[in-house]
Amino acid sequence: MSHIVYNPKIILVRPQMQENIGATARAMANFSLNDLSLVNPREELCEKAYAMSSGATYILDNVKYYDSVTNAVSECQYIIATTARGRSINKPTYALEEGIKLILHKQAQGQKCGILFGPERTGLENDDLMLADSLIHVPVNPEFASLNLAQCVLLVAYEYFKQAHHNNFDYISSEPLANKNDINHMINHLITELDQSGFFFPPEKRLSSVTLISNIFSRNNLTEQEVRTLRGVIKALVKIRQQ
Amino acid sequence: MSHIVYNPKIILVRPQMQENIGATARAMANFSLNDLSLVNPREELCEKAYAMSSGATYILDNVKYYDSVTNAVSECQYIIATTARGRSINKPTYALEEGIKLILHKQAQGQKCGILFGPERTGLENDDLMLADSLIHVPVNPEFASLNLAQCVLLVAYEYFKQAHHNNFDYISSEPLANKNDINHMINHLITELDQSGFFFPPEKRLSSVTLISNIFSRNNLTEQEVRTLRGVIKALVKIRQQ
Repeated sequence: MSHIVYNPKIILVRPQMQENIGATARAMANFSLNDLSLVNPREELCEKAYAMSSGATYILDNVKYYDSVTNAVSECQYIIATTARGRSINKPTYALEEGIKLILHKQAQGQKCGILFGPERTGLENDDLMLADSLIHVPVNPEFASLNLAQCVLLVAYEYFKQAHHNNFDYISSEPLANKNDINHMINHLITELDQSGFFFPPEKRLSSVTLISNIFSRNNLTEQEVRTLRGVIKALVKIRQQ
Repeated sequence: MSHIVYNPKIILVRPQMQENIGATARAMANFSLNDLSLVNPREELCEKAYAMSSGATYILDNVKYYDSVTNAVSECQYIIATTARGRSINKPTYALEEGIKLILHKQAQGQKCGILFGPERTGLENDDLMLADSLIHVPVNPEFASLNLAQCVLLVAYEYFKQAHHNNFDYISSEPLANKNDINHMINHLITELDQSGFFFPPEKRLSSVTLISNIFSRNNLTEQEVRTLRGVIKALVKIRQQ
């Protein structure tokens, strides 16, 4: 896991819906972000926001309020603004994945970054975008492009978390895997029984059938327990014959 | 943009909330998915779902209903199940980004893929996971890991859309893979024979043994020919008994 100097500041500009602020807090908590700011929300935080946060109250309790975007971004060194595609403004514009790469790069240089999200219906105004160094957009189906505010935060937070942690997650520990010796003994057991049953007919096809059967089991990452079970299965299927 | 043969089938297993089904449809529309299936939803789709879909009614209108996960996956060749981290089950487990890479790879080989999502509170049961070839989990903050169902679909759909439109996969010819229906019939054939042989003893362990055996074969990408061969193997092993 990489060492993160700062997490980005998430800045909701003139948010209208309490539910979206709560869902934003939840999405931030899901992805280890905690620095939430509101610029001129329609109203102060109330119960609706807390209910939607599903327990991410520590984020809502520490929300910072600002009366202008200029003040909200003041301690940051780098600001990126989320937009729908197709804003014609002469700033570097990145798809989300690339934009997050850029933020991580800036943070690695010790810069505090902020990410601006616009109001639900209208998005950010040109006056807001003026304060950003660059723009990001989430790649979406152009025929159905409307993303809810909190969904947009969720996607940004996911992409940030994923890249910040280098995708380097431990895989789930599982049962001990059988070694090849165990697997090959099991396969040989099966082949022996099949030989006795007359399965391989005509004889000239035996080799290709043995190969096919061996392949089924050899590529399968069998655990020790599974190999024991398969041996039990073979014995059970033939046991009447052996009596 | 690469040519996508199939989009994955999105399968909600026993969904409880209309709102989540509607939000799922919206998330799918955002990212150009349209194949939605419901397995035993608590109730049929109603107005609440349509309201939450924000206009993705064409997806809800074409929802397919199933009475079991087995039937929902039957025409697919590859099934991936979404889980929270930490399920100890011996199947390949991928973080979302890697899991989507795998799905695109399977699709490039002409395989129809399905993605299973569990019920809101409980997630998928072991019986559901048994039918999956592999598992994916969304990397999240382990201290705040609860993702809403529709948010989980949104993240999966986003990652799919992003990768599907940026990566090029070559077509790779391979043997035709068995569909899940063929595989499940083969497994049932095996279980039936094992029941007759008295393999499952004591009876209270039958379920866990059946699960273990099913998992061996369901995760294994069997070809049609391999399934035919395995059925021949079962018949050969028991044939003396049947005489």
